Amino acid sequence: MRTKMISMVKRIQDEICSAIEEREDGKFREDIWEREGGGGGRTRVIQNGSVFEKAGVNFSEVYGTLSPQAAKEMGGGHDSDDLTFFATGISLVMHPHNPFVPTVHANFRYFERGDGSSWWFGGGADLTPSYLFEEDAIHFHQTFKTACDKHDPTYFPKYKKWCDEYFYIKHRKESRGIGGIFFDNHKAPNQEGAFEFTKDCAEAFLPSYLPILERRLGSEFTKEEKKWQQIRRGRYVEFNLVYDRGTKFGLNTAGRIESILMSLPLTSRWEYSHVPEAGSREAELRKVLMAPRDWV
Amino acid sequence: MRTKMISMVKRIQDEICSAIEEREDGKFREDIWEREGGGGGRTRVIQNGSVFEKAGVNFSEVYGTLSPQAAKEMGGGHDSDDLTFFATGISLVMHPHNPFVPTVHANFRYFERGDGSSWWFGGGADLTPSYLFEEDAIHFHQTFKTACDKHDPTYFPKYKKWCDEYFYIKHRKESRGIGGIFFDNHKAPNQEGAFEFTKDCAEAFLPSYLPILERRLGSEFTKEEKKWQQIRRGRYVEFNLVYDRGTKFGLNTAGRIESILMSLPLTSRWEYSHVPEAGSREAELRKVLMAPRDWV
Repeated sequence: MRTKMISMVKRIQDEICSAIEEREDGKFREDIWEREGGGGGRTRVIQNGSVFEKAGVNFSEVYGTLSPQAAKEMGGGHDSDDLTFFATGISLVMHPHNPFVPTVHANFRYFERGDGSSWWFGGGADLTPSYLFEEDAIHFHQTFKTACDKHDPTYFPKYKKWCDEYFYIKHRKESRGIGGIFFDNHKAPNQEGAFEFTKDCAEAFLPSYLPILERRLGSEFTKEEKKWQQIRRGRYVEFNLVYDRGTKFGLNTAGRIESILMSLPLTSRWEYSHVPEAGSREAELRKVLMAPRDWV
Repeated sequence: MRTKMISMVKRIQDEICSAIEEREDGKFREDIWEREGGGGGRTRVIQNGSVFEKAGVNFSEVYGTLSPQAAKEMGGGHDSDDLTFFATGISLVMHPHNPFVPTVHANFRYFERGDGSSWWFGGGADLTPSYLFEEDAIHFHQTFKTACDKHDPTYFPKYKKWCDEYFYIKHRKESRGIGGIFFDNHKAPNQEGAFEFTKDCAEAFLPSYLPILERRLGSEFTKEEKKWQQIRRGRYVEFNLVYDRGTKFGLNTAGRIESILMSLPLTSRWEYSHVPEAGSREAELRKVLMAPRDWV
């Protein structure tokens, strides 16, 4: 399963990068890195591109021995004293320049603890717009619902709910984005079936996002709309640094810092006591973030 | 001691705000707020001023019952089961526009746990330049050394070291800034003496910072120098959201979010794998951040 998963996520990384490069002026910069303690990765980043302020698509394959703290962050319900682990996956974050194109994040992972008798899959994809377009939200969710339903009709509602719960900025009482799917500790129906499910979700990424990107890319925007996007980026940073388990896991396992923090936007903004004007499009987004909706 | 400390830090808040307003085009915006659970504060902020991108000077006085988690973050070595607490203090952060003017942070606090038989003082001041000027670093430290030495010659070396240890961004293997003083759980020589020490440090703030501000304010700077400042601001955000105990304490005690996160800069930047050019002024700063120096 290790080699099978590695080959799948590397293929997905290639496919996603090619699709993005077709729409960008530049190419991804690639960094191959090794991890002290075991494993390494292939990080690809576009920075200050024509479409994306920052887009990173990482493959990694790491193994070794966890600190007890990192073992806790890792999850998976594994409570053995054996702290050895293996993890591989793809993780991507794309922050576009245009405030009408949403930020998107996805990751698809396979984990083992101890001798490999304990294993599970995790991952998901979620959308973080600065401005709400219902048709985009519906399309994104519908694409992942179709991928989920192929395997089990209970997956999508369960994993959409988990996404809303996971990407929650507690101190702001709002979600980071408008949803998607999130799953962890996934073992059903068996290792092969769980792999197929994860693969189908990973393959749903491009069809979930590209149509939205192309629909919004040409939109004109004002300085004020760009500023609102920057404020939303600040909230993205807050979530990732304060709450995100993957980020904490990376920092605790002495991962490659630049690959972990590649998820942070190129630029962001914190305005003191900023409140969007009542009835504005900015207030409309905020409302959805405070009360997650089912889009399909 | 509660009322005495409150009156001292409110006076210091007034003095600092007046001194800043003399140098700014605008005035501080003031928000008086109450805390659900007990207490409140007086937050003053200048945003997008002529000198400061963001400057916040907060007074607060909070009390009530801690969660066990917040009790742990609070420190003070108090291990009673009594989770009631009282805390008052001033906290300030100033982020200037000009990359040659350093960001500065300071706070001076008084704490009680339980019935008040357990009390201590905490605080400090630290400087975060984007570009190193040795004379500024020396002046800043000398000012606080003089304040410390008046009370006990062991304080300054101890609290400078604690500052370097506290403001450390572990995952970057670098300090947030170039030092200052940091103290917590300070009870010596007695309550009155500890108050006087804290007061002398608080009164040292303006003389430590104003001469630096005035010396650097007129400096011309390039777009590249501004960009470097933005990257340093990103590191500031990383420290505050990932490590800062005060921020965690605030988020865990359901403090006023806007007052807690007022410490974040107006704008910041994360460049993937940014490395300053060898021998540049940016590299010179980085070197000092990776190996803290004694300035006096």
